[in-house]
Order: sequence, then C-alpha cells, then structure tokens
Amino acid sequence: MSPDTAANPIHSETIDVLAQRRSIRKYSDVPVTDAHVDAILGAALRAPTSSNVQAYSVVVVRDPAIKERLAVPCGNQKHIVTCPVFLAFLADLTRIEAAFNRNGHSADDNNLELGLVATIDAALVGMAAYVSAESLGIQGVMIGAMRNKPEEIAEILDLPKRVYAVFGMCLGFPDEAPKQKPRMPLSGIVHRERYDAAASLGVVDPYDADLKAHYDAIGKETTDASWSDEVDKKFSTRPRDGLRAALKVRGFDFL
Amino acid sequence: MSPDTAANPIHSETIDVLAQRRSIRKYSDVPVTDAHVDAILGAALRAPTSSNVQAYSVVVVRDPAIKERLAVPCGNQKHIVTCPVFLAFLADLTRIEAAFNRNGHSADDNNLELGLVATIDAALVGMAAYVSAESLGIQGVMIGAMRNKPEEIAEILDLPKRVYAVFGMCLGFPDEAPKQKPRMPLSGIVHRERYDAAASLGVVDPYDADLKAHYDAIGKETTDASWSDEVDKKFSTRPRDGLRAALKVRGFDFL
Repeated sequence: MSPDTAANPIHSETIDVLAQRRSIRKYSDVPVTDAHVDAILGAALRAPTSSNVQAYSVVVVRDPAIKERLAVPCGNQKHIVTCPVFLAFLADLTRIEAAFNRNGHSADDNNLELGLVATIDAALVGMAAYVSAESLGIQGVMIGAMRNKPEEIAEILDLPKRVYAVFGMCLGFPDEAPKQKPRMPLSGIVHRERYDAAASLGVVDPYDADLKAHYDAIGKETTDASWSDEVDKKFSTRPRDGLRAALKVRGFDFL
Repeated sequence: MSPDTAANPIHSETIDVLAQRRSIRKYSDVPVTDAHVDAILGAALRAPTSSNVQAYSVVVVRDPAIKERLAVPCGNQKHIVTCPVFLAFLADLTRIEAAFNRNGHSADDNNLELGLVATIDAALVGMAAYVSAESLGIQGVMIGAMRNKPEEIAEILDLPKRVYAVFGMCLGFPDEAPKQKPRMPLSGIVHRERYDAAASLGVVDPYDADLKAHYDAIGKETTDASWSDEVDKKFSTRPRDGLRAALKVRGFDFL
C-alpha cells in the first residue's frame, strides 16, 4: 500500500483491495466457479456506459485448447494458459449496427468517437470486473497483448465484424505474493483546479530512482533499470503499428 | 439489483455496490472532504496500467468558477456546477514524451495504439475511482461530454499538448434515489468459450421492450421509447465528428 493511502483514515473494502493490488500470474488449484464468474460479471456489467449504449461484450474462456490458442498472438504469455478463467473484454458495435440498420442507417465509415465510446465502455466493464474479482480474493492480470493481432483473436473467439478485443484478463486464486511495484507519486499525477505541467514532469526523475531501487530490491535482472528507459524502449518503437489497419478490417474506422 | 446478481450467493461490498449502482445527478450538502478524494484517488491510481506506462493524470476541481466554465462545452449539464467535486480523467503522454526525448526519440506522429493505451489507462483509473467513491457512499455520474470540445476543456484546465480529457466525473453524497435502469441481459452480453452472434443480437428486441416498460414506469416523457431508437438517434448522426482533428491538435495522432 502506498504511503499516500496507508496514512489516510478513510477506508473501505474496495479501497483497501485496490490500494494493495498487484498483478498475479501464478494461480492455485482453488477453483474459480461459475458462481464466482457470474457474480463478478453481474456486478461489472452495471458499470457506467456512455448514453446507455452498452457497446461491449465479454467472452469467458475456460477451455484449455482455446486458452492455448489465445496465448500465441499474445506473445506466448503462459499465465493465459495456466489461469483457470480468462476473460476477453470486447468493444462491440453489432447491436448498435442493428439499431442503425432498422432505422435505415449504416455503421460504415464510423468515426473516432464511436470507436472510443466502445473501447472506453469495455475498459470500464473490465476494471469493474477486476476489482469485483479482487474483492473475492480472485486476482490476476490484464492482457493488453490481445491487441497484438486482432484478426487472429477474432478468428479464435469467432468475433464478427464490428467487434474487437480491447484487452483480456487472467483470473485465479493467487499462488504468489509479489512485492507491489512503486507508482509515480500522486503529487505529479493528481492536479488541483488546473493542470500543473511542472509537477507532472517533476516526478519522472524521482520515479526513475524509485523504480530502480525496487528492481534492485527484488533482484530483477534488467538492462532497462528506469521507467524512462523502459517506456522509451517499449513505446518509441511504435508497437502495434498495424493496429489501425487491423481494426479497420474488424469494422472500426476511427475516422 | 438485477435478477442475475440478486440470486447469486456470492457477494462482497464491492460487488453489492456495483450491482446497485445508478448515476446520481443531485447531491446533498454533506461535504466530500480532501481526505475522501485522497482515499479515492490513492486507491484508483493502483489500477492496472499497460506495461507500467501510467499514461494518465487527474484534475480535481472544486472551484465553482472552473466548474461553471467546464459545464458549457459539456452541454450545460448542471450537475457539473452543483457537484461538490468534479474529476477530469486525462490521457497524458507528457511524461512519455519526456522519456522519448531524453533518449533522442520523438512522440510526433504517434499511432492508434499509443492513443488507445493512454485512453484505456485513464478509463481504468476513472472506473476504479468511481467504485472507490461508491464504496464510501459518494455517488455521481461520468461525463463523456468532456470530449465535445477538447480544445475548450484544455484551455479551461491548462492542459498542455499530449493531454486530453477522456471523461469527467461528478461526485457527491446523493440527494436522489432514482430507479435503476434495466441493462441488456447477461445472456446476450456474456459469451462462453466463443462469441455467439445470435445470442448477442437476440437481446435487442426484448431489451427495447424492457427499457420502454422502465420509461413508462418512471413516467419519462420521450418520443424515443426504445434503446434501438435512442442509440440510432444519438450515434447514427456521427456525434463528435470533429474529435479526430481536435485530438490531433492535442498531440494524439491515432495513426
């Protein structure tokens, strides 16, 4: 738990669960039942949705063969195979397209806003599911690599046009207890009344040092010891540069 | 609470809070303190973030003059003025750009993936903040209309280039208890192993009827009595068609 949170007298189950959150990639044999999944998704699907558009769907995957296939385009992340339950959170325009069509309208050439509405809707449901799972002791990790090869994911999960996987989520009861990774301090992330650019940029150097100290403490072998180096290496190389073309095939034009 | 959730024996504070969630637009005089906001954001900023990129910031607005200015581009939604605390959830590439620059790289001509990473990151923090607030009895409503005029929002909140407001959030202790609006049934939203297109489209007609019955029950006067008609009217007219150009000015290219 961060110093920011630990010193605060205001708590709830939800707040304490989030404050102690860390990604879990190793799972025990304790089963995640259908009742667990139904409780998690029943709650998560009450997340806010823009103008009641409900532009999302979820696929619950337990079948080992499907999880093995999903892991491949996701960089062979083995926790996708070993987790008892994998959830795919989908941006879904199919029902919206049906509503357009019955009114004589088309969903072709859809714009950035429609793509973002569906993407954000799916992300809100995914986060609500994640914290609901955590409140039951079920932990896991989100899988952004579902955006590596949208066409392969679509083929594996039978996704029709107008649907893409925003991210996935491995869930299970934990079989590891990793040290929580430090985050940037709230002083540079949370602004009062107006954005403070100096405060925002001012946290980078101290955070680089904090993260390096964390990596040293857990004995992580890395040549990219700072956040700045990691982020530069990961994102300045323009990962997923084919995403725009791939999502156009999926029926998201982002115009 | 939906029938799906009420019958399930598995519960937690978080799950029950979400299952009963509704948007609140009228707030009591009970103060939302800085300790509340710090607890909410301290927890929310432990939400998962893709590859630890932390591509988000939050502005906490209490100043009535700033809330009044923000309400204007958001379609004059009066709860933005009357809520005790307004939060703006920002996709923020400034620290990433600093990391690129110190390694001799540029954030210009950034791609769809980078824009989505930052947008999803901000959405995850926003949802985590929302459920954290709810767990304290603080309720509210998300404001997607922050994307109506990104340049005006940026001017009001002093947002630099590489930052845009994904959505806002009004928060306060509730002074109303609206009936929960029905959602599409899980049978069409939650799929098992693979996506079932017939199940997905099959919920539209029954849901149109459910929503109309809800509107009749609460005495809502509307000429758009079904979900299909509402969604068609709202989204087939291509709302926020200028968003792509506006976000390009903000430094998000979505290439």
